[in-house]
Amino acid sequence: MTDQTPHPTPQELAQAASQAMWSKDSASQALGMKLVSIAPGRSEVRMTVRPDMVNGHQLCHGGLIFTLADSAFAYACNSYNLITVASACNIDFLAPAKLHDVLEATAMERSAAGRTGVYDVEIRVQGGKQIALFRGKSYRTKGEVISGL
Amino acid sequence: MTDQTPHPTPQELAQAASQAMWSKDSASQALGMKLVSIAPGRSEVRMTVRPDMVNGHQLCHGGLIFTLADSAFAYACNSYNLITVASACNIDFLAPAKLHDVLEATAMERSAAGRTGVYDVEIRVQGGKQIALFRGKSYRTKGEVISGL
Amino acid sequence: MTDQTPHPTPQELAQAASQAMWSKDSASQALGMKLVSIAPGRSEVRMTVRPDMVNGHQLCHGGLIFTLADSAFAYACNSYNLITVASACNIDFLAPAKLHDVLEATAMERSAAGRTGVYDVEIRVQGGKQIALFRGKSYRTKGEVISGL
Amino acid sequence: MTDQTPHPTPQELAQAASQAMWSKDSASQALGMKLVSIAPGRSEVRMTVRPDMVNGHQLCHGGLIFTLADSAFAYACNSYNLITVASACNIDFLAPAKLHDVLEATAMERSAAGRTGVYDVEIRVQGGKQIALFRGKSYRTKGEVISGL
Repeated sequence: MTDQTPHPTPQELAQAASQAMWSKDSASQALGMKLVSIAPGRSEVRMTVRPDMVNGHQLCHGGLIFTLADSAFAYACNSYNLITVASACNIDFLAPAKLHDVLEATAMERSAAGRTGVYDVEIRVQGGKQIALFRGKSYRTKGEVISGL
Repeated sequence: MTDQTPHPTPQELAQAASQAMWSKDSASQALGMKLVSIAPGRSEVRMTVRPDMVNGHQLCHGGLIFTLADSAFAYACNSYNLITVASACNIDFLAPAKLHDVLEATAMERSAAGRTGVYDVEIRVQGGKQIALFRGKSYRTKGEVISGL
Repeated sequence: MTDQTPHPTPQELAQAASQAMWSKDSASQALGMKLVSIAPGRSEVRMTVRPDMVNGHQLCHGGLIFTLADSAFAYACNSYNLITVASACNIDFLAPAKLHDVLEATAMERSAAGRTGVYDVEIRVQGGKQIALFRGKSYRTKGEVISGL
Repeated sequence: MTDQTPHPTPQELAQAASQAMWSKDSASQALGMKLVSIAPGRSEVRMTVRPDMVNGHQLCHGGLIFTLADSAFAYACNSYNLITVASACNIDFLAPAKLHDVLEATAMERSAAGRTGVYDVEIRVQGGKQIALFRGKSYRTKGEVISGL
């Protein structure tokens, strides 16, 4: 029996892996996130600050800004179709995000060696100012996002 | 004119400030968190991992583990009734949290000098293993949580 | 052939491993550090701020405060006689250290699971105020500090 | 009274401030560092790994890799001639540096708002592989590096 399926390109692999992840990612979906773009080692995720995401000053909970960044990080580091988890992250909060702000998180790979990688994520208000800078360290476990692709 | 109101104790202040914050904290409430205990420089917050908090492997999104820790941090560092915000945080993920796990985040002050403080938060499955270690840096702005208390 | 050597206790193992490391640790020696105490998962290292460690304001270079903490971390996480390296570290600077200050770094294990560990190091002026808080993530490679002990 | 001194350009200011700092920076000098380039918000610093910087495996002490990065960070964030200190830093170690390696640290500003800034520093073996990624948070105090320039 011959394998007639052409090998997917890195971009096709990134799209297939992210689609498979997204369909099961209840948490990112429940927070109203959108996966705006995906490429090998990169992603962009968007989220609008809703009334159930703010505190009494109508400012977005910092944990949910982090969660947006962490989702962007997860899609970027799983874009090679190899299951990869976060081992540690840090975030610098630069300015508050307000109710109804549209936040964009852009993740890109800064380093990849062996099983570990370092990814930077910048969070901005759409078309505007920086909200936070996030850096995540990833660890590749065994297994593929989509087996046998 | 005499001030007949007795000065609140530090513990009374912590309780009053946290109650005022909690009543307006839509984000922590929407995630089903409970403020279990509060004291000057310390807090404990609990959250159960719900179906809308997991990914396809039925594991809690790391961002929501961070959000729980960040809430515990916020209550601990605002317990002196002085408005205090997060300037930077980092988290080490030690073990995954699963659907229906009850997570407990315990925050305590490690340093306070001038306007900045450092707080450590440990996240465990109730009565059990460590899930993550979080460290937050706080910055005290102007103003009080409850003015004139 | 019988092995007549009694198994070393954890404390004996920590002392033997740290002695072996110290004898080859040119960097810590060149900075005048002293290993004050060692125990499983814990260590204390001391360093005096010398004229070649300060900047123009007679304040210790932050990198050398970090280096002291990093040495304490290394001795604590290698105290089980299993070769362990730093994978990531963060430091919060709380107050400056001055020329001739005697700095003490106290390291303790906060978590150990599988090959990774998290260690906290507090740096103080001897008997006095906090200078910095350091957190290090360790990764255990293959091999022993002293083979076959 | 007329001021006949032309205002220095941002680049001239960066060069003057860094020269003034360097002349008093005993720590960076004692470690054999060279300030290779300076510009507003950017710097490059070089250091060769000497025998007194290694451990028993002939690998550079991680603290001294951090110290190199921290110096690059300091020159970059003081390049506006406003006195600026490190408030927190983190570093991810990617690969070991060996005896006699020439290490290059390149610092660049990622964010600047009010008194705080975020700087990224990449450390590489000259012309080669990544050794570490460093991120520093700066805080601007009062005063100028060179008063009245």
